[in-house]
Amino acid sequence: MAATDTQAAASPMVGIIMGSSSDWDIMKNAAAMLEDFGVAHELRVISAHRMPQDMADYGAAAAGRGLRAIIAGAGGAAHLPGMMAALTPVPVFGVPVPSKYLRGEDSLLSIVQMPKGVPVATFAIGEAGAANAALHVIACLATTDAALRGKLEAFRARQTEAARAMEVPPRVPL
Amino acid sequence: MAATDTQAAASPMVGIIMGSSSDWDIMKNAAAMLEDFGVAHELRVISAHRMPQDMADYGAAAAGRGLRAIIAGAGGAAHLPGMMAALTPVPVFGVPVPSKYLRGEDSLLSIVQMPKGVPVATFAIGEAGAANAALHVIACLATTDAALRGKLEAFRARQTEAARAMEVPPRVPL
Amino acid sequence: MAATDTQAAASPMVGIIMGSSSDWDIMKNAAAMLEDFGVAHELRVISAHRMPQDMADYGAAAAGRGLRAIIAGAGGAAHLPGMMAALTPVPVFGVPVPSKYLRGEDSLLSIVQMPKGVPVATFAIGEAGAANAALHVIACLATTDAALRGKLEAFRARQTEAARAMEVPPRVPL
Amino acid sequence: MAATDTQAAASPMVGIIMGSSSDWDIMKNAAAMLEDFGVAHELRVISAHRMPQDMADYGAAAAGRGLRAIIAGAGGAAHLPGMMAALTPVPVFGVPVPSKYLRGEDSLLSIVQMPKGVPVATFAIGEAGAANAALHVIACLATTDAALRGKLEAFRARQTEAARAMEVPPRVPL
Amino acid sequence: MAATDTQAAASPMVGIIMGSSSDWDIMKNAAAMLEDFGVAHELRVISAHRMPQDMADYGAAAAGRGLRAIIAGAGGAAHLPGMMAALTPVPVFGVPVPSKYLRGEDSLLSIVQMPKGVPVATFAIGEAGAANAALHVIACLATTDAALRGKLEAFRARQTEAARAMEVPPRVPL
Amino acid sequence: MAATDTQAAASPMVGIIMGSSSDWDIMKNAAAMLEDFGVAHELRVISAHRMPQDMADYGAAAAGRGLRAIIAGAGGAAHLPGMMAALTPVPVFGVPVPSKYLRGEDSLLSIVQMPKGVPVATFAIGEAGAANAALHVIACLATTDAALRGKLEAFRARQTEAARAMEVPPRVPL
Amino acid sequence: MAATDTQAAASPMVGIIMGSSSDWDIMKNAAAMLEDFGVAHELRVISAHRMPQDMADYGAAAAGRGLRAIIAGAGGAAHLPGMMAALTPVPVFGVPVPSKYLRGEDSLLSIVQMPKGVPVATFAIGEAGAANAALHVIACLATTDAALRGKLEAFRARQTEAARAMEVPPRVPL
Amino acid sequence: MAATDTQAAASPMVGIIMGSSSDWDIMKNAAAMLEDFGVAHELRVISAHRMPQDMADYGAAAAGRGLRAIIAGAGGAAHLPGMMAALTPVPVFGVPVPSKYLRGEDSLLSIVQMPKGVPVATFAIGEAGAANAALHVIACLATTDAALRGKLEAFRARQTEAARAMEVPPRVPL
Repeated sequence: MAATDTQAAASPMVGIIMGSSSDWDIMKNAAAMLEDFGVAHELRVISAHRMPQDMADYGAAAAGRGLRAIIAGAGGAAHLPGMMAALTPVPVFGVPVPSKYLRGEDSLLSIVQMPKGVPVATFAIGEAGAANAALHVIACLATTDAALRGKLEAFRARQTEAARAMEVPPRVPL
Repeated sequence: MAATDTQAAASPMVGIIMGSSSDWDIMKNAAAMLEDFGVAHELRVISAHRMPQDMADYGAAAAGRGLRAIIAGAGGAAHLPGMMAALTPVPVFGVPVPSKYLRGEDSLLSIVQMPKGVPVATFAIGEAGAANAALHVIACLATTDAALRGKLEAFRARQTEAARAMEVPPRVPL
Repeated sequence: MAATDTQAAASPMVGIIMGSSSDWDIMKNAAAMLEDFGVAHELRVISAHRMPQDMADYGAAAAGRGLRAIIAGAGGAAHLPGMMAALTPVPVFGVPVPSKYLRGEDSLLSIVQMPKGVPVATFAIGEAGAANAALHVIACLATTDAALRGKLEAFRARQTEAARAMEVPPRVPL
Repeated sequence: MAATDTQAAASPMVGIIMGSSSDWDIMKNAAAMLEDFGVAHELRVISAHRMPQDMADYGAAAAGRGLRAIIAGAGGAAHLPGMMAALTPVPVFGVPVPSKYLRGEDSLLSIVQMPKGVPVATFAIGEAGAANAALHVIACLATTDAALRGKLEAFRARQTEAARAMEVPPRVPL
Repeated sequence: MAATDTQAAASPMVGIIMGSSSDWDIMKNAAAMLEDFGVAHELRVISAHRMPQDMADYGAAAAGRGLRAIIAGAGGAAHLPGMMAALTPVPVFGVPVPSKYLRGEDSLLSIVQMPKGVPVATFAIGEAGAANAALHVIACLATTDAALRGKLEAFRARQTEAARAMEVPPRVPL
Repeated sequence: MAATDTQAAASPMVGIIMGSSSDWDIMKNAAAMLEDFGVAHELRVISAHRMPQDMADYGAAAAGRGLRAIIAGAGGAAHLPGMMAALTPVPVFGVPVPSKYLRGEDSLLSIVQMPKGVPVATFAIGEAGAANAALHVIACLATTDAALRGKLEAFRARQTEAARAMEVPPRVPL
Repeated sequence: MAATDTQAAASPMVGIIMGSSSDWDIMKNAAAMLEDFGVAHELRVISAHRMPQDMADYGAAAAGRGLRAIIAGAGGAAHLPGMMAALTPVPVFGVPVPSKYLRGEDSLLSIVQMPKGVPVATFAIGEAGAANAALHVIACLATTDAALRGKLEAFRARQTEAARAMEVPPRVPL
Repeated sequence: MAATDTQAAASPMVGIIMGSSSDWDIMKNAAAMLEDFGVAHELRVISAHRMPQDMADYGAAAAGRGLRAIIAGAGGAAHLPGMMAALTPVPVFGVPVPSKYLRGEDSLLSIVQMPKGVPVATFAIGEAGAANAALHVIACLATTDAALRGKLEAFRARQTEAARAMEVPPRVPL
């Protein structure tokens, strides 16, 4: 299980895991968002189907290592988010990665339709979902972290300003 | 906006809102779960389409009133969770209520497919989703509340025992 | 909220709003149609999720400013048309903008499946829907505007002639 | 073409048409709404497939008879709304009637996915859609009818009050 | 209604009609098949929504002109096959033309889900469906035409031989 | 292969086959229609998966026995219509029988999406499709049978009259 | 993990596992089929989400205990078949159990869309799929067991005879 | 029926069949996997619809020729796997080949939704499904072949190591 921790100085609060390195194009949107907010996190490839023991170990250790949230992305028969949710008390946030032929409809249903008792908080298919999973984790952390709450409100204010500044027809540069 | 607070003694930490009193059959599963865990919460009918100002007011006041999470259920073109997420920094957890003809497929897509920047954590269609939204909120709260974490682990242990005790074919009473 | 009014001379009768400037490629088909018919209109980017207060303000002022119709385009969890319909007595005409992974199926359901009491008149996914929303608004306005009715009938007669002139196999230029 | 006009005194402003008398259970929701608002209307069974000439005649005469809107309901391969839209300049508002096996998904797509040039304003599948088609027609008529606008605003205010008065758990009578 | 008859010598037995010249890329597969079998046919663009009167005229004259079958292609809210079936006793064979965003799912349902009493024989979405509609017409004509039956059996024998000759991995030319 | 021929006197022109006797509730609508028109037909249960040799034998003999059309109903992975089309030059008309969980969506796709070269003329899911398959066969036969054409036109005239006689709200008996 | 072994005498060759005792109504069709063929098997409730360690233990021991196949049924976000496939070299046969709102579409996709490297052999949604999973296991075992092959061929011969004996219309008892 | 046997020395244990040589791009993933494991196999194009007699012959001879499994790929109305399952006691493993417009949803349903009594073990749409069908056959064969079991376990161990070695963000070569 190769690790690429982006913020080695701080102990990670959030784990971003994905079923394959090919999911990175989507999941990097979650990592970028956490980085923007300065939330210490770690990145792992953990395949539910090819690394089930690593998955179980990761889940068993997650709370003790101080993780407050796990963002899990997977595609197709996407079992990683739901299985991780079964293996740890740390809340799991799932990202449906688009699949080749069904464009993520299978990923979405495999993640969101969890049975009563073991939840996965699910977000939109693809890039938007990855970014939003991170934002939702930030919002959860911010409920007990005033500084982070401030950053979140600033982010949303900037976002509102950016939307307000949009023009149609789009202004074409000279 | 009629209120029926179930735990008046404690200031509510979680708001459960829904688009219509007809959503109660589903959303009561969220309320029951919070009650089981002793998490103070409040119940409100807030229709995004018929009470937009109440919705905005609720969102604006939510953080200041101490809400740490909002669970929002709606069906069909289910705008309540996403709009509430736009109106408050408090994290929103969405429950797709089954619709009459499309059985909640419309509700699910209307809730989960939020654009980048404004997340809604989405759960399964129907009863399981309502219960799981509450469980996920509990898991989030438990990351900073050791007692609640203990209750959550006890709940999961009991749940595991109940599953382990299941027999097939089901034992028929004499 | 940057404005780009195309017909400043006349007070706009129709507002064309969209959730992002990226929706312009679709929504310009509505604008072009209104322009062809000489119906004064305005263009606005109003994001339901990033600019909820601007959205409410727009809805509250719409009738008083003389708007007779609002054409609203949005994609994914497309809440703008339905929320605008909740915020104004001016009739709202919704355009499902194609989404990246689900090609507008989510947009269509999020717009059309409104609950009883707050309608959105919905049109086809994409370019055809945008053009048709404008044509339908024109048809509504034309019920009390004989000149516009004349233009509409001329448009339809030309359209019929163009279809009649179609040849198969298509004539290839020399 | 048997007619059952509900308000013979006034010349009808709105035609409600449907493909079969079996659609009445859905379409009566449109009629009831128009009746509540005192909008003179007529009811007709016009089958696109079994009465194409009657359909063409109805469309040709509609504008001259003073109709300002046509509400058309149909199920399955639902061609009535789109064909009526091709046959008259009067704006057409389509209601997808639920089908036996596909629950109205076929009806919805057959109505909403009209090609550029001939719009049908489409509403939700079933009862809600029928009621909302009528409400949208009322909103269109109200743009030039202050009394009707007043009724519409009163309706919406009552609707908001009714939603505000909802309680959960529902109050059980003693 | 521009006509491009490919076999002017013989009176056409089959009419191939389509909603727009843009459908030609698909519908040419029907024409090519009829040409291969030497079945006299005609080609017409007839838009149900832009040329309803031409459509009715075509249907009314079809039997008298000696047409034995009509192959009708259309996309999206594809009303041409079903309406033509309502307008003529000549059997209608429908081809769902792929639509831009829903890839022909809407076309298929709009064509195949006809109500009891007015059938459209429907084929696969796209090129295969167009070719097969023609083949099916040929099979129907061949039930009373021994020469055509012979050609059909020869075609199928060749088709079987071509399939039998297929190799995997495909033979790569030197 | 038990046979229940309804019109033993005449040599059957149409074969109605189905994958199981449980399909009878749907397929009887095809038989009733042929009976109404006096078209001699035979009924057979032929399971593609449980009776492949009988299926091949039936296909091989069909043309020689004078069958002019085969109506085939099946549900789920509905292979009977397509396989019969591969086994005989007689044209095959397919009826998607509703399946238990997917309501005939699987049946429809399994029947209609045939590859280029081997067509199945497909009709609506369920009762309407069965009746319409028979009506379409009748229309094909009627192209060379003036008496049958007359019956078909009379049927359609009666059908039009029945639709014209429909009233809404439905007349309630005293 | 309560066990109810139906054939204690023989060491089980097949394990039938399911996510909940509520899946029994479907999965009993697999058990009945194995029983009919005299294939020793065991029944277990193993919830992927509530009993992940039991699931891992079961998978780890399966081959050593002599299991030659595992039939796994689950509904909704159905992770049990795929996870079991990841945990054992014994081949896994998956049965999509119908879900409450999506009727097993979610179950099917969650089971069948496994990534390259970890297969689950998947069968139809519901009762037919459960029976067929067992039949397929029997066919696999029969490739090296002449007696079982004989039983399988006898079963199929009886099945063919039963289909051949079907009559339509169904014979009504006097 | 052109044959391209890859391992002429050994008598084939597995037949890989497909409906057209155009399916090779998908099905080669099954062949490659069998080759990697040294499982003797043969390749055939067998079209259910264009070569039904060859298909029946292949099924009738399969067991006698020593085939232990048949992997069958097909797209659209994909009848080859199910029909082959009806024609032989050898277990059949189906691969849904992606179709042009519906991306394999039709292929999947046509293969997996087999009626009770005639199973097809179905795998994912496309390349992953082809590879996995082969892997599942290998797992079945390995239950009575210790050497193959050893290879399978080595394959899985390598696969696990490969997944463990994945890094995110992917390491870019200098």
